[in-house]
Formats: sequence, structure tokens, C-alpha cells
Amino acid sequence: MYQDYDVIVVGGGHAGCEAAHAAATLGSRVLLITMNMNTIAQMSCNPAMGGVAKGQIIREIDALGGMSGIITDKTMIQFRMLNRSKGPAMWSPRAQSDRMRFAEEWRLALEQNLNVDFWQDMVTELIVEGNDILKGVRTSIGVEFYAKSVVLTNGTFLNGLIHIGEKQFGGGRAGERSAKGITEQLIELGFESGRMKTGTPPRVDGRSLNWEAMEEQKGDENPEKFSFSDETKPLENQRSCHITYTNDKVHDILKTGFEKSPMFQGRIKGLGPRYCPSIEDKINRFAERERHQIFVEPEGWNTVEIYVNGFSTSLPEDVQYKAMQLIPGFENAKIFRPGYAIEYDFFPPTQLKATLETKKIENLFFAGQINGTTGYEEAASQGMMAGINAHNKVYEKEAFTLSRSDAYIGVLIDDLINKGTNEPYRMFTSRAEYRILLRQDNADMRLTPMGYKLGLTSEDRYNQYQTKQANIDSLTQLVNDFSLKTKDANPILEEKGLKPLAQGMKAAQVLKRPEIDITTLSELSPELKEKMESFNQKELEETEILLKYETYIEKEEKLAGKLNSLETFKIPELFDFKSVTALSAEGREKMNAIQPKTLGQASRISGVTPSDISILMVHLQK
Amino acid sequence: MYQDYDVIVVGGGHAGCEAAHAAATLGSRVLLITMNMNTIAQMSCNPAMGGVAKGQIIREIDALGGMSGIITDKTMIQFRMLNRSKGPAMWSPRAQSDRMRFAEEWRLALEQNLNVDFWQDMVTELIVEGNDILKGVRTSIGVEFYAKSVVLTNGTFLNGLIHIGEKQFGGGRAGERSAKGITEQLIELGFESGRMKTGTPPRVDGRSLNWEAMEEQKGDENPEKFSFSDETKPLENQRSCHITYTNDKVHDILKTGFEKSPMFQGRIKGLGPRYCPSIEDKINRFAERERHQIFVEPEGWNTVEIYVNGFSTSLPEDVQYKAMQLIPGFENAKIFRPGYAIEYDFFPPTQLKATLETKKIENLFFAGQINGTTGYEEAASQGMMAGINAHNKVYEKEAFTLSRSDAYIGVLIDDLINKGTNEPYRMFTSRAEYRILLRQDNADMRLTPMGYKLGLTSEDRYNQYQTKQANIDSLTQLVNDFSLKTKDANPILEEKGLKPLAQGMKAAQVLKRPEIDITTLSELSPELKEKMESFNQKELEETEILLKYETYIEKEEKLAGKLNSLETFKIPELFDFKSVTALSAEGREKMNAIQPKTLGQASRISGVTPSDISILMVHLQK
Repeated sequence: MYQDYDVIVVGGGHAGCEAAHAAATLGSRVLLITMNMNTIAQMSCNPAMGGVAKGQIIREIDALGGMSGIITDKTMIQFRMLNRSKGPAMWSPRAQSDRMRFAEEWRLALEQNLNVDFWQDMVTELIVEGNDILKGVRTSIGVEFYAKSVVLTNGTFLNGLIHIGEKQFGGGRAGERSAKGITEQLIELGFESGRMKTGTPPRVDGRSLNWEAMEEQKGDENPEKFSFSDETKPLENQRSCHITYTNDKVHDILKTGFEKSPMFQGRIKGLGPRYCPSIEDKINRFAERERHQIFVEPEGWNTVEIYVNGFSTSLPEDVQYKAMQLIPGFENAKIFRPGYAIEYDFFPPTQLKATLETKKIENLFFAGQINGTTGYEEAASQGMMAGINAHNKVYEKEAFTLSRSDAYIGVLIDDLINKGTNEPYRMFTSRAEYRILLRQDNADMRLTPMGYKLGLTSEDRYNQYQTKQANIDSLTQLVNDFSLKTKDANPILEEKGLKPLAQGMKAAQVLKRPEIDITTLSELSPELKEKMESFNQKELEETEILLKYETYIEKEEKLAGKLNSLETFKIPELFDFKSVTALSAEGREKMNAIQPKTLGQASRISGVTPSDISILMVHLQK
Repeated sequence: MYQDYDVIVVGGGHAGCEAAHAAATLGSRVLLITMNMNTIAQMSCNPAMGGVAKGQIIREIDALGGMSGIITDKTMIQFRMLNRSKGPAMWSPRAQSDRMRFAEEWRLALEQNLNVDFWQDMVTELIVEGNDILKGVRTSIGVEFYAKSVVLTNGTFLNGLIHIGEKQFGGGRAGERSAKGITEQLIELGFESGRMKTGTPPRVDGRSLNWEAMEEQKGDENPEKFSFSDETKPLENQRSCHITYTNDKVHDILKTGFEKSPMFQGRIKGLGPRYCPSIEDKINRFAERERHQIFVEPEGWNTVEIYVNGFSTSLPEDVQYKAMQLIPGFENAKIFRPGYAIEYDFFPPTQLKATLETKKIENLFFAGQINGTTGYEEAASQGMMAGINAHNKVYEKEAFTLSRSDAYIGVLIDDLINKGTNEPYRMFTSRAEYRILLRQDNADMRLTPMGYKLGLTSEDRYNQYQTKQANIDSLTQLVNDFSLKTKDANPILEEKGLKPLAQGMKAAQVLKRPEIDITTLSELSPELKEKMESFNQKELEETEILLKYETYIEKEEKLAGKLNSLETFKIPELFDFKSVTALSAEGREKMNAIQPKTLGQASRISGVTPSDISILMVHLQK
């Protein structure tokens, strides 16, 4: 009765929103089904986007034509570039958002997309014919919607179980119901599933805190923003966060709750995020630490609600309350709602192809926490990739994947499908082999052409990219070719207390000196300065990085090139790894299970040795 | 462990918000407990405030110091004064609100009230000692909060059961859980409970409607606002609503769903709102009507979500969909979520005192749908009254009640506690005996002094009221005393095609003519005009009404005075009505059950005759 869709997206969180937006923008007729239209794009955890490695992902999403960057820019209340004191590979943009605005802007953005329809309901079942032909979904009220592809982005809702101390109750999120039916059906269809766990801290009343007792953490003086587009502007005013610390007394009180802890007493079966642990986890695992940092984050421009970042806990609520009162600034803290842990179903992502389509059921895609990841950015990027590939599949276009040297998104998906994960997977810079290539500043240079070719990035953005590229090229050439004269440069260098030039030399060479940035460089010659004035700040910064880190960049590019040759070395479909007896037993078994598509992919499967790869290459070249 | 409160308010809808605001503003330490802090003041049904008799209630709330008027003003997208063509007793302000803004403004208003704390959780139990001593509440996670008073405003959440066709599932509202425990406990404590039913229409996608096929309904050209305060301004831009109609074909399709209708097949036990019926109800009860009006209302400034007012239904969703496609303008309508009916527990309000405190358990107050009412305005006003009285009780102040000649709020509560209701009670002008007294325009004149005396209305507002009163008095005197001369007046009257004056006469007398409004009156003499220029528009309008309707107003005031003497005729506490054998059997029984506090209250109990009242009066005067 209802219209048939190209793509149905189940779930309206970060993954679902990006999936719907991507597929619809590419031209698919999309239906977004969410349990509650008032909670589309709700930030269930902290009201912040970006951070180390995650800020890079948002810029990648933005360059490819996704919305997370733009929505964050429109709703942010504070911006900071983390790790500025480190090398540019580590620079990571991070923003606090206004939680309500964020949700509202995402909903409006989707409403403005004429290809996105909405349905509020719980999907309880996939419509599958003959065990593997996907037809659509069925909802809790019995409505059937048909589509060529379905993207599941169920977040923490699948059989969600909330724990606070010894209490436990079904729920997908504080105050919301859990979702039933899908897990059971997928298991019946042959999928393997598991349980994971995550948690949130108590939310507190900002009016009850003593701000004087905490360190203020202001936003950057000259804040940037996420999106490379001109659609958004950096903030003019910002709200501060605050920092405080736990102490021995806090820890002692928390320990009194350990005997009722759902984690320590084994009531929680799922594994939690190692790198975003609960406060009781931190106390337990790092017993030697006398204090842990707490970030006190406002939830929006006007609200008094505060997110207590770093104090995630599922201890009994009275223990949470008592311990909190001993944190400086929190002496009179009032809680709006206690922290809790939540267990939910996920599906080990080794059951996915690189497109995020499941291997078992064609046209069925998974994105976000259902794949065992944690984090808004990880979810959003998977959603976008699944949305793109769901569309491309429906319209019989080429699959769209990113390599590990293209993007953090490539690293993320490659890790997931090859290594799987048994604890919530979070992105780190250390997971990327080519992190000097995968910088936040060059995400547009890396990915805009791909996004444009896909049709997700606009022509405006592509033109902007081309201009930037051309300008960087000519600026690079200028700095490479321009000879600085000692008579121009040395008086300035001496004035700044810097080592003078022994002789005239190329500007690029001078820029390689650690103490010389591109602004200083321009001052070393009136002629150079004049020539550089036609370039904007972003172009100057980019060129500076490219020249300063030229050696490292070239080295990584070479490495990546080598690996990419493995990447393009295809393994035939349904290849029988067992027939290659020379392979190691473990390598044979793992490859047979995962069915890698290329030697590159095979090389990253845990248990596959370099010698397995050589053997396989020889075998395949026969 | 947690702080003890003066007043705990359970529920964050219209009733809960006004209750928390009133008690806190009066000085009580208030805890508002809501199942979801993101849905505080969510408009569960249509995104509109006011309307016939309901607009009057909002102005009364505003005059007494409640917030509903101000919040509506801040968030409205359209304003209309209904019934302007009728007499001023019927004029009724009505506004469409932006649903998200409305919720957000209420939450911010409460957050700004330093006496209001928040807790997100489900209250599952009252803490009651020895069967009738109220101590506080216990929540689903086992937390106990203590307070001197508790106000229950549970809306449709108590054992909420949602029906769509043959499907039914627990839920307090679309996408939200129902609340458990409280009903069962109250029944155990001796309360009588019942079931009621209400419903909502499907929400649709405005992008899928053909606006050309519908009548546009613009806001007023010179829109007013609700609040008498200067804090808000009338709208400069407005969004239009649209009107369309059902037809025979729509009805025919709807009828195909009757055999699966939860209402017609008896699955719904609770009674629904007679005056806000579902579309299937309308077709059934008014079989002769060829069409029913549908108001197509936008849900906000930007969202494409549309509320289909007049099409509330619990028929199967496919029937809803098919029928809707036959409504002009809805040929391609896409549904966001289907309409549904919801059954929930209520407590017959004859179990309440005039303060909304329960008779059984001291310090326990009920407000809103739990009392069997329907409508945001009815709920909000009860919430405010319960909040005031909960505070006054805690601080040992006099109970605050309104008589039937004071306010619609007085009519509402008097009806509820004396007559009870077995279907959702909605306010109408016809329920008020003194409707020429209870106008929307004079709510400030009627109630500001009371609100100020209470401490809920600010001094600014009181001063403003006093100025207005003084100006109305002097303007009234001016118009009463001023003699119009034929030489001034007649040329103007003739020019306007109106009957000239036969002789010089007092301005007030001329104003009594139906065709003469106060603006025309002022033009009949340059001297009068000059003198009237010092009065503002509201003062002119008010004086005009007072003078034009003087006779009616005086008559109702006299009647009200008479009744008020019954009202002040107190019946002793625990009076044994059974001992007065001369009373009619029914009257005796009913009065014994309800225990009226005054003869006035007794006179309004259904089944009590005028002769019962006379007998009682004689008996009590002995």
C-alpha cells in the first residue's frame, strides 16, 4: 500500500541520519524509521563532537558530503583544536554542541531533503524471502514497508538493558524503550551476535555547582569550525567547560558500591569500552592513580543541565551521589538523573563486506553500534558509508570504499571487517598507519574529489577544492623557488632572536627549520611577503605543513603505495583458501572465514602472516 | 540522603509544569520528577493553546501568575481571536505554537526558578505511613524522596494502553513507556479509579500535501497575545493553517475499518471525550453529516510535520492511510505516524477537595488528566491551583479556591469535585453561569488582585492592573458624564450612514447602540476625542464592553452575589447528612458521599434539589 523505497534506514541516531542523508542526496528514495521522531539525532552521551582521531573523521565526513560537520558547526557552543602543541597529524578539532539544537538541526536538514520520508514506529522484523532475499521491514504495529536495501542502525536499542547498581530494566536509552525482535530473527538467519556494554555519567544541575572551585576551560581564542564549506561560520561567543578531579575520598566512597556493581558482580555480560571506562573501572584498573580528571560540560547555550564527562558509572545511585559530593565544586551537586550502564546486542562486524553490506543477506547493511563501535563519529561515518553503498547497490553503481591511506574511515571499516572487535571499538590516531597523511586539515584535499565523483559533494565544494589545490601548488612552487637573501632575512631573524642565515637559501629550506612558521617566513622578504598575500590562511597553513613535513609525508606515501599494490591485487570470488596447502593452518582458516577480496585485506586479518601473503601472491599469479 | 522537599510534583506536562512553577514561586522547595527531561511540557496532542473557553482559562492562569500564557506568547506561530462576531463573552483567544519551542521555553522557565529541582525517573509508589500519612515518593530505580506534599499529574501514563486497529501495546504516549504502580497502590489505599480514553490523529508530511486544494486560514491581521504582562510581544509574522473537509468517500473507507475498530468492538473500555471525538465517532454519531472539517495545522516555524486536527482515529493504520488520500489536498499525503487511541487510569474527582487535595490522604493533590479532564488548559489550570494549595498547606496558609463567578477555573474545579465526570471533561462557555463576567479581556481585572495577594503575581503586574482599573474608572465616568451635541455628532453619523441623534445625549447612552463602537463614539466630538486620547486601546475596549453590556453584567453580578451568599454559608466538617431525615434520599446520600463544605457547593451536586438546600439551610440555622 505504501510507496516502495530504494533504501530504508532503521534508527535515527548519528549513523541513521548520515545514512538517510547520503542515500537520499545521491537520489535514492529513502524511508527513515525511528521509534521517536522527537529524538532524531539525540546525543545520548556527551554533548560533544570530534576530539582526537574523531575530529578527523568529522572532517572526512564533511569532505565526502555528509552533514555531521555542518550540523556541529551550526550548533556548537565551544570549539577547541586539541593537541596543537604536537605535530599536525595529532591536531584534532573538538566542539561542544547544544544538545537540543543539534537534534533539531539534523531533523530540519533531513526534512529539507525531499527524498527522505519518515515513519515513527519500532521495526521488529526484516521481511526476508527464502532465508536470504531481503524485501523490507515490518513494524511493531504490523505495517510493512518494502525496499531494495535496508540499513540497520539500532544503536544501543536491541534488547537494551539498563543497569544502575542492583537494579536492571529494559530500555534503549534513559527514559526510552528497548527494541525487540531483530536480534532473534538475525540469529535465526544465521548471524552471530554478541553483547556489549556502554555507560553514561549522571547529569547534574549546573545551578548547584561551585564554579570557583574548578578550572575554567575556555574555547580557542580564534575558534575554527568543522566544515570546509562556507555554509557555516566560526563562533563569536563561546561557553566554557570546567575541569575538576576526583580524589581518594571520592574513590573510597565509590568502592563501597563495588559489591553492588553490576560490572564487578558479573551481572553485565557485555564488554565495555576500554578507552572510555567507567569511573569504577578506572579506580579498579589504575589503583595507583590518586585522581581522575572530570570535564564539566554544559549541555547547551541556556540549559543548566551539565554533563559530568569522566564520571560514567553504573554503581548504585546513592553511591554516585555521595561520591560526587566529595569532588571539588560538586559539594552541593544535585543530580538530574544517575549514571547507568547499558547492555545491548551487536553483530561481530567480520560478518560484513567492506561496503558494510552483510555477507549473509544481500542488500542488508549495518552501521554504528550494531557493528560493535562506540562514538558518534564512528557511527556517523559508517552510516554515511552504508548509505552511499546502499544507494550504489540499488542503482547498480560501483561499491564505494576507502583505503587505510585514504581516510580514518577506511581504517575504521577495514579494522572492523577484518579484525572484528570484542569490545566497543573506538578510533585512535594510533590505529592509523599513515597518520601524517590522514590529517584533519587535508581531509578536503584527500576526499572532496571522491565525494564529488560520487555525487554527494556539491560542485561548489569541488570548485573550492580545486582552487585551494591550485593555490597550494603555486604557493609551494613559490616557496620552493624563492631565494631568500641574507640582507633581507637576517635583520628580521636577529630581531626575533633566531639564528641568521649563513648564506642565501631557498625559502622552503628555511621553512623546514622548526622555529620558522610560514608567517615568519613571509616576513623575511618584502617581495615574498607581497607574493604570499594573495593566499588565504588555510592555504598558507596547508602549504606549511606539506613543506615542513615533506619527508615524512613522502615516506608514508611510498609505504601506502606499496600496500595499495597489495590492495589492487584481487583474490577471485569464492576462492578456496583450503586448496593452498602451503598456507599456515591459522591463516587458511581465517581467510576462509573472512573471504578477503584483495591481498591487502588478507594481510590485515589477524593470524595471517606475511609469508601467507607471499605464498598466496605466488599462487594467484600462476 | 537527598534533600527533603516541600512539594514533589510527579509529571512534567502542562499540569506538572504549572504546579511546580506555582509552588516554587510562592517559596516552596519543589522537586519535579519526570520520566524524561527531554519531553517536559511536550504538547502530546495538537500544537495549539486556547480556543473557546480555553483561551479564557489561559488568561486566568496568566492573571494569577501562571506561565502558560507567557510560554504560549513566546512560542506561538499564529494567533486568532475566535468568535469576534459574537458578544464579548464568547471572544476566545487561540494560538498555534511551535511544539519544540514550547517545550524548550517551559523547561528553561523552570530551570530559571531556583526553587525547582529535577529528577528523571518513574515514580512507582507513594511513601505512605499507616495508610494515610504521606511522606514522599519512591521511584523505579528505588530512590526515595521525602516531601510534605505531593502533586500527581500523570496524564495518560498510568497503565497507558495504546490502540491502533486490532493492535494494542503499553505506552504513555507515542514512543514512550507507560507508568506502573501508582494506580494499584491508590486503589489499595481506598481510592476509586476508572479508565478513560483519548486519541490523536495521524501526523503527516507537509511536503506531501497540496495546499492549493485547501482553504488558507491566516492569523489575525492585528494579532493579540495571551499574557497581560509586557514581557511578551504580539507576532509580527505568522504561519497559516489550512482547512479541508472529509467527504462520503472518505467516510466509506473509514467504515471498512469499523470491524477492526478498538472502540466499536469493545476493546476500549474507557470513555472518550464527547466533544473531541474521533473521526469514526463523528461518522457514526452524525451519520447525516456529509462532511467534517479538518484543520491542517503546522507543528512549528520550520518543521514540515503537520497535525491533522479533526481526524483523530484509532482505526487500523491502512484504513487511516487510504481514507486520508481521499481528502482534498491529501491525495498524496504521507504519514509520519498513524493516529491512535490511548486508555489510561483516572480517579473520579469527587474524591477531591476544592483545593484538589484528596479527601483520603492529606497533602496529596491531583491535577490534570488524572482527574478525568482533557485539554492542556484544563490541566495547566488545575496544576497551578494544586501547586498553590500544596504550597499553602505546607506553609499553613489559607486554602486558595475560586468561585464559579470568579473564573472558569472555579467552574472547572467546582464541576469536577461535585459532579465528577465519567468522560474526559472539557471546558465550554456553556458550563459557566456567569459568562458575561468571565471574559478573556477582564481576566486580569478579575484575578490579578488575588494572584498578587497570593504572592504569585508580581508587584509590576499588580501596579499595571491598578493603573488599568483607575483608567477604566475615569474613562467610564467621562463617557457617562460627557454630553454629545447634535451639531458635533450628527454630521459624522450621517457621513457614516448612521442614524443621527434626535437631541443631545450622554456619550454612554450613544455607545449602547449596537452600531456604535468606542472609536466611532470618540469621533462624535472633538473635545471627547481629545480627552479619550490619553487612554490606551485595552482600556478603551474594556470600558466599551463594560458600558455596552452594563445591564447584562449587572444582572449576572446580582445573581452571582445571591449564589455567593450560599457559597459563604458553611456546612460544619463531618456533618451527618443522614441525620436530616427531611432531605430527599438521593440528596442525602450524595451529600454524604461528597461532604460539601458550603450550601453553594451542595446545591451543585447532581441529585441535590433546591428543596434539599432550603431544608438544609433551615436545619443549619437552628
